Amino acid sequence: MSAGGLVVFEGAEGVGKSTQVDLLLCRLKDAGITAVSFREPGGTAVGDQIREILLRPGNEISPAAEALLFMASRAELCGREIAPAIAAGKVVVLDRFFLSTYAYQIAGRGLPEEEVRGANKLATGGLVPDLTVILDYPVRSGLERASGRGSSDRMEQLDAEFHERIGRAFTTFATDEWSAEHPECGRIVSVDARGSAEEVAARVADALADILPDRFWMLRQPEHSGLS
Amino acid sequence: MSAGGLVVFEGAEGVGKSTQVDLLLCRLKDAGITAVSFREPGGTAVGDQIREILLRPGNEISPAAEALLFMASRAELCGREIAPAIAAGKVVVLDRFFLSTYAYQIAGRGLPEEEVRGANKLATGGLVPDLTVILDYPVRSGLERASGRGSSDRMEQLDAEFHERIGRAFTTFATDEWSAEHPECGRIVSVDARGSAEEVAARVADALADILPDRFWMLRQPEHSGLS
Repeated sequence: MSAGGLVVFEGAEGVGKSTQVDLLLCRLKDAGITAVSFREPGGTAVGDQIREILLRPGNEISPAAEALLFMASRAELCGREIAPAIAAGKVVVLDRFFLSTYAYQIAGRGLPEEEVRGANKLATGGLVPDLTVILDYPVRSGLERASGRGSSDRMEQLDAEFHERIGRAFTTFATDEWSAEHPECGRIVSVDARGSAEEVAARVADALADILPDRFWMLRQPEHSGLS
Repeated sequence: MSAGGLVVFEGAEGVGKSTQVDLLLCRLKDAGITAVSFREPGGTAVGDQIREILLRPGNEISPAAEALLFMASRAELCGREIAPAIAAGKVVVLDRFFLSTYAYQIAGRGLPEEEVRGANKLATGGLVPDLTVILDYPVRSGLERASGRGSSDRMEQLDAEFHERIGRAFTTFATDEWSAEHPECGRIVSVDARGSAEEVAARVADALADILPDRFWMLRQPEHSGLS
């Protein structure tokens, strides 16, 4: 009988979020833990229709409407997928969640924080992640990696200065001071995302085992299993 | 040189909002006032895509996602159409606005008021109507009229008890007490919507002339033009 959980990967473009989601899912499954992953926006029938609007090149969307569309997709995902999966004892692993909204819509677009947090609360119904892992990677290298994928949706076409602002926001989110002022975001940890995907995955596993030992002790790396 | 303005028609299904929007537009144009009208959700390129999601039969949408989608469409409409039209000196006439959100999403669906108002503020950027006219019409008769049109989109398929709750909410919104607690909604007046469309339009014109005489004195009916 296992308890459910919610682990989120965050960070700017090209830091390796989707790769780390996949690698963590593998490690959890190897450890006998049932885990599922989702990516925002989308993940539900209506959420996918919202995702189409948000990512369609040529759609001019105001910052406020963009934020509200992301939140509408989030409301569907939380209600129909995330909350039921956690209630069924599964670990849910997300590629982006609250912190992306706070980074892109508040820090990036300059929307008022109080209203965005209110809309977010409406969307999540009070769901708090057990741990958010911010993948820390140099913004310019990440952008090069993202553009090297050949993808060029609306979000990635934004200018470099905007992405620098996003990168600085994620650095701020990893501080204790910011975390204390935003209890709805839960525990946040920054993990060095340089090196190979497997090296980063090992750091993520250690972070989970260190911070949430009751739930994730089995993810600890062999070389760290002794007392240090 | 005329000042712009924002007039909103509200009320439950089938109370005659769209007819009154058209009749007020005619009267304003006859009086030499440039006026435009919009209907929520929609009225912009992205808003129309959102409208499709909201009204598509078969789309199951959670109450929170529904509210956030309406608000995203509103953000586009306010930023791209309503605010620029008012700034250009036009009178904007709306078929539904804040009060429909408060009636359907808070009173109808039971969403938390504070978060919905926060999301609404994000959508409108602080825009306040000059006057909201609630068309007061018996809920059951309105529903019969709406179903007589043969339309049967997602909103109108909801059950009768839900629509009764909406009707009671609109009655509450017309009270001074409610209005004082919701300054973002501006002035609100309830107008008897029974009788012919022209009779109701005359009452609406009188209400505008009475409440906003500096702007709408020319709409006063001949029989009311003297001192009473």
